[in-house]
Parts: sequence; structure tokens; C-alpha cells
Amino acid sequence: MKIGFFQFSPCHGNALENLKLISAALDQTQFDLLVLPELASTGYLFDDPMELQALSEPADGSGVFLGGLITLAARHKACLISGFCEHAPEGLYNSAAAVDSSGVLCVYRKTHLFNTEKALFLPGNSGFPVFTFRQVRLGMLICFDWVFPEAARALALKGAQILCHPANLVLPWCQSAMVTRSLENAVFSITANRIGQETGQGQSLVFTGRSQILTPKGDILAQAGVNEQALRIVDINPMLALDKRFGAGNDLWADRRPEHY
Amino acid sequence: MKIGFFQFSPCHGNALENLKLISAALDQTQFDLLVLPELASTGYLFDDPMELQALSEPADGSGVFLGGLITLAARHKACLISGFCEHAPEGLYNSAAAVDSSGVLCVYRKTHLFNTEKALFLPGNSGFPVFTFRQVRLGMLICFDWVFPEAARALALKGAQILCHPANLVLPWCQSAMVTRSLENAVFSITANRIGQETGQGQSLVFTGRSQILTPKGDILAQAGVNEQALRIVDINPMLALDKRFGAGNDLWADRRPEHY
Repeated sequence: MKIGFFQFSPCHGNALENLKLISAALDQTQFDLLVLPELASTGYLFDDPMELQALSEPADGSGVFLGGLITLAARHKACLISGFCEHAPEGLYNSAAAVDSSGVLCVYRKTHLFNTEKALFLPGNSGFPVFTFRQVRLGMLICFDWVFPEAARALALKGAQILCHPANLVLPWCQSAMVTRSLENAVFSITANRIGQETGQGQSLVFTGRSQILTPKGDILAQAGVNEQALRIVDINPMLALDKRFGAGNDLWADRRPEHY
Repeated sequence: MKIGFFQFSPCHGNALENLKLISAALDQTQFDLLVLPELASTGYLFDDPMELQALSEPADGSGVFLGGLITLAARHKACLISGFCEHAPEGLYNSAAAVDSSGVLCVYRKTHLFNTEKALFLPGNSGFPVFTFRQVRLGMLICFDWVFPEAARALALKGAQILCHPANLVLPWCQSAMVTRSLENAVFSITANRIGQETGQGQSLVFTGRSQILTPKGDILAQAGVNEQALRIVDINPMLALDKRFGAGNDLWADRRPEHY
């Protein structure tokens, strides 16, 4: 299975421009699963929540960005996962959607909002859904979810073989923490971070790139630079993530002692 | 508060010799809390369970090794934490004890046994107790517990400010995973690994040293080499581990969403 990420600097406030950018970057590329950054349709900082509201779209695929992703997924016969701003009746969510040619496969609403996101988004209420694409179980995390071990654990315990992790990282710790997340759960992980910088909401942020793909042992299969637009695809055997043995005498699942947690 | 570890190669099968070695190494050293390796009294591999049985002792401090540690703790006016083989009516546990001049403060029985330990020890049934020494809350993990995020999490959620982690590590991942453990829980951690090698139970093991002390941000305050006997003491403010804020807008405890885990 060919899995990958596209690391780029989303154009602020222009979903159509971002779709074009993504589409051009993926042109002629073959893959089965590709992960894009958090809020790849809109950008990250918004002084005016109304501006973000205008850029939001429903999770059903009827909007500009997810609609375009579905078209792109059909063209590549693949699953695309991207962060986007979800418009729901009760407000906005910092969400990720997985789409293929049939439409939206799964939507995840970010559980752990970071810093000033709390001023823009409702805390996610989707839990940690796992879905199946071509007989492989997939789950999504968004950015700051990395710091809560329960997030990756919940997905892995539900059978996720690949953690798909759109991100807009600004802190230095995630990439190495994801090594632990992959290792402790014996799962692949794809962290798709963005690059570039934004100013707004009283701050100026530099996004830190270094998107990466990790094996169930935490080994790095691909890693992008800190400030390069980068498309990386690697070929993996997702069945490896079904094997929870750890060395000769242990099994990460069978050896858990939930009665003591 | 002065906290530290003593990394050494325990003498196989000779608790008294190990006590002497520890006592000599700590001579003239001031500390409040010092962590020793897993099974520091006995060594690690035993072809004959009866040999290990003969080296085991009860957890009440009445045996040779814990009795000696209590004397040493009194001399240093400190808390000592060490792995030892615990003799219980129902069998043997791979345990750690915390002692001070008053006796045994707390006993932890290793929850997650590694590989061939399963042939020698009962799985721990103590859960993850937290105890107080000089108004600082402490908790214990033993070696392979590192790979299960629930272990460190359970201690930290009960208020542990310092994870005291006796170990006999032979795999390459623990030291960097403990950076994640400290960071995700905002706690100090002391991993006291051993050095040297042992042969038995059908294998030959080389222990990997690199004992370390980490801050609640996962920064390394002290780290020993891969094969050196090493005593390291650092001065910390354990109150820092009570602050679960993470950047300007988050709190690792308040932002948890247990209803989704």
C-alpha cells in the first residue's frame, strides 16, 4: 500500500487555491492513501471568526474543498485525508475528513483544541472513529492530540493500523513523541504538518514542517524538511500493524493490565 | 530537592556485596532521593528459580537487602528506591521498594513483566501506588512498564511528581520514550538502568546504561554513559511538576477528555 503526505503552506482563506495547489502537486503521482495538513483548506489564524465561518463547509462533501478532494481522490483511485473547517448547525469544528471516490468515508472532530483554537472551534465530540479503506483500518488524530496518549491508544485499540495525523505544528516535541505513539501501539503513523507562517489572534506562528511517516517500531520511513514543500510516498505492508508482538516474549495487547489503569 | 540515580552492574546472587557496592558509591554524597536499578540486589537471569527464591526477601524491610537500604537511607537522611526480588506467600514478585529511616514507605510490584521474567515472577498486583516523601508525591515504574502509557499516566493522575524508574534495559527505545512520558504527564522522571551483562535462561543480555533524569518538559538534566558506573545527583524543584499548563492556552489535565478515551 502506497501511503504518503503532502507538506505545504496553505493559502490563507482560499480553499479553491489550496485545492489547485494540492491537485498540481499530486499530478502523475500514484498512491493509495495521502494525508494533508490540518485546516489545509483555510489556513490557521483568524482574527474574525466570521471570516472563518464563511470558509467553513459541511462534512458531507457538498462544499468546495471536500467536494474537490473527492474528485481528486477519484482521479487517483485513493483515499485522501485532510483537515478542514467543518460547519455544523451548532458551530465550527476543527475537523479532518477521509474521502475516496464514493464520498466522505469518515469525519473526525479534533478532541483536544490547542491554545487560541478554543476561540474559534467547538471541542470535538466525534470520539476517535476508525474506518476501513481497502481492508485496512485507519484512524485520524489532529495536531495537538499527539500529547494525549489516550488519543492514539483509543484508535489503536479499535484496530487502526495507520494513524493519519494532519497537523499545524509550532512546538518542537511532536515528531519524536509520535515515535513513541507508533512504538507503544505498534502502528504506522503519518504526520502531515504544514510550513510557512501566519500572523493573527495576537500572535505570529512559524509552522515547523518535518512531516513524517513511521513504522510500527517507530522507525522513520520518510521525513520532510522544516521549510520545504514536500510530497513523500512510501510503500508499506499495513498487515505489519496487526502484529502486536514485542520481542520474543511479549505482546503489547495481551500484556496490557487494564484492571490496574 | 536533590534527586539522582546510581547506575552499576549488580553482583549476581549476592545482595550483601551489592549493598556494600552501593554504600561505598554513595559515601559522602548528599541527596534526598536516589533510585537504583531493577533487581539491584540479585541480578537478572536465573536458570534455577530456586536460586532466585533463596535470594528473595519480604517487602517489610526485615531482609538483608531492604534492611541494609533502610540503614543507608537513615545515614543519608534520604529516600532510597531500588528493585529487589520480593518473597510473598504466593510466590515471587519483581518489585521496587521505597525506604527511608523509618522503614519501607511503599512497595510496587512490576505490572508488565518482560519476556523470560514471566518464568520467574508473578505479574504484579499492587497497581500503581503513589506515596509522599517530604511533601513530594512519588511513584514507581519498573523497566518494561515504560512501553505502556497507562502506567506513567496512572501515577501522574494520582499526583506523582517524580516517576522513579528502576530498570534493567536491553532494548534501545526506553530512554527516548521516557521523554514522551515526562512531557505528556509534566512530571520529572528518574530512569536508573544497570550496566554489564548476564547469561542464563537461554540468552545473553547486555544492559544498556544511559540512566537519565528528565524534567516535566522532557529535558535531560543528567544522563550516564552506556557502560560506566555512574552516580548522578541534580537539584530540582519538584513543585514544577504540579503545574500542568502547557503553553499559554492549555493544561494537560484540564484539557483531557476522558469521556472519549
